[in-house]
Amino acid sequence: MRLALLGGTGDIGRGLALRWAVDTDHELLLGSRDPEKAREAAAAYEDELEARGVDRTIKGFVNEMAADRADVVVLAVPPYYVGDTVDAVADKLDSETILVSPAVGMKSDEDGVHYRPPPAGSVTALVDQRAPDEVPVVGAFHNLPADRLASLEVELDLDMLVVGDDDDAKATVQTLSEEIEGLRALDAGPIANAPEVESIVPLVINVGRYTDDMHDVGVKFF
Amino acid sequence: MRLALLGGTGDIGRGLALRWAVDTDHELLLGSRDPEKAREAAAAYEDELEARGVDRTIKGFVNEMAADRADVVVLAVPPYYVGDTVDAVADKLDSETILVSPAVGMKSDEDGVHYRPPPAGSVTALVDQRAPDEVPVVGAFHNLPADRLASLEVELDLDMLVVGDDDDAKATVQTLSEEIEGLRALDAGPIANAPEVESIVPLVINVGRYTDDMHDVGVKFF
Repeated sequence: MRLALLGGTGDIGRGLALRWAVDTDHELLLGSRDPEKAREAAAAYEDELEARGVDRTIKGFVNEMAADRADVVVLAVPPYYVGDTVDAVADKLDSETILVSPAVGMKSDEDGVHYRPPPAGSVTALVDQRAPDEVPVVGAFHNLPADRLASLEVELDLDMLVVGDDDDAKATVQTLSEEIEGLRALDAGPIANAPEVESIVPLVINVGRYTDDMHDVGVKFF
Repeated sequence: MRLALLGGTGDIGRGLALRWAVDTDHELLLGSRDPEKAREAAAAYEDELEARGVDRTIKGFVNEMAADRADVVVLAVPPYYVGDTVDAVADKLDSETILVSPAVGMKSDEDGVHYRPPPAGSVTALVDQRAPDEVPVVGAFHNLPADRLASLEVELDLDMLVVGDDDDAKATVQTLSEEIEGLRALDAGPIANAPEVESIVPLVINVGRYTDDMHDVGVKFF
């Protein structure tokens, strides 16, 4: 498949790109609003992979072009850019393109980090509202600890959650997730259940802040 | 210490009573609005423990009397009774009594279970608002899988979270929690961070509903 990581120059985008590059044969496209930034990041990831003996081509594009070429488009951008990014790529999407939402709306204060979803109810629901009706939307990858994900020497043994109203699209994203070694993708139901999935992210940040010797906290369900 | 489980006839109350009975020497009091119901449950727990070779006295009382005698009062009642229960026992509490809130406001629909906190922001915050000012309040025990907790033959290997504004009270509840074998209590910060802690409960219920071969789902952070 062709996987586009919009905002692929950021934390979670980098981790997913590197892991998919090592563990799968999927074609990887990085997207950014600035195509030069996307190309630079793609070249840097290629270098990092080559240093580990992995010969991989990763291409950088402006978001619209990355989305146009992809079967799965991951919106790995900050939550306040998600709506505009969906609008920007909307006419490149169709019923055959899965749109994946990993972002979480949060607010920090002196006590910790708090879940603050957009009026749609969740970022995943916002994406579903803003995307063309025929485009299947899946929420996924929210609670992956970014540093561990991007550190290829770290063995992952982590759970993540997927939500979506289109069962086929959800199953595809689950499969893509579990092709990353050590990652398990659990079904948490339809998009209506996204708020509880997204709000685990501020929770693990707070646990990392207040509990000694824990940081970049991952989760397992069992 | 003297530990009172108000609503100790319910799922989580039963599990905590049985586990503390086996793993600690703390004096255990069950509370209920109906003292006869509390005494019957206490006798049933004693029988269950005796059948496992554990000789333990558990006493049943009306909620007010259980709270009056206890050092730690766990509000193991359904979320819609929490406020009234706090009001009922308020004049039995003081700065030396820790009030513990494990309840979570939730709503079910055809999609799953959704987090619906009270206007205070969380059940823990509601308890903190309704309790007398000098009474320390700690949120804890929310996400324990009730069947596993109450099945003494099951080895626990579970994480739970604690929130509270009084560090000493929070540390006491963490210690009490971790005296239960296989339970680890992680600090998630002050009561302001309770919503993210409480909302993991509908999440694990949804995971149990939609993911094959998972039910009574527990969590580990690492």
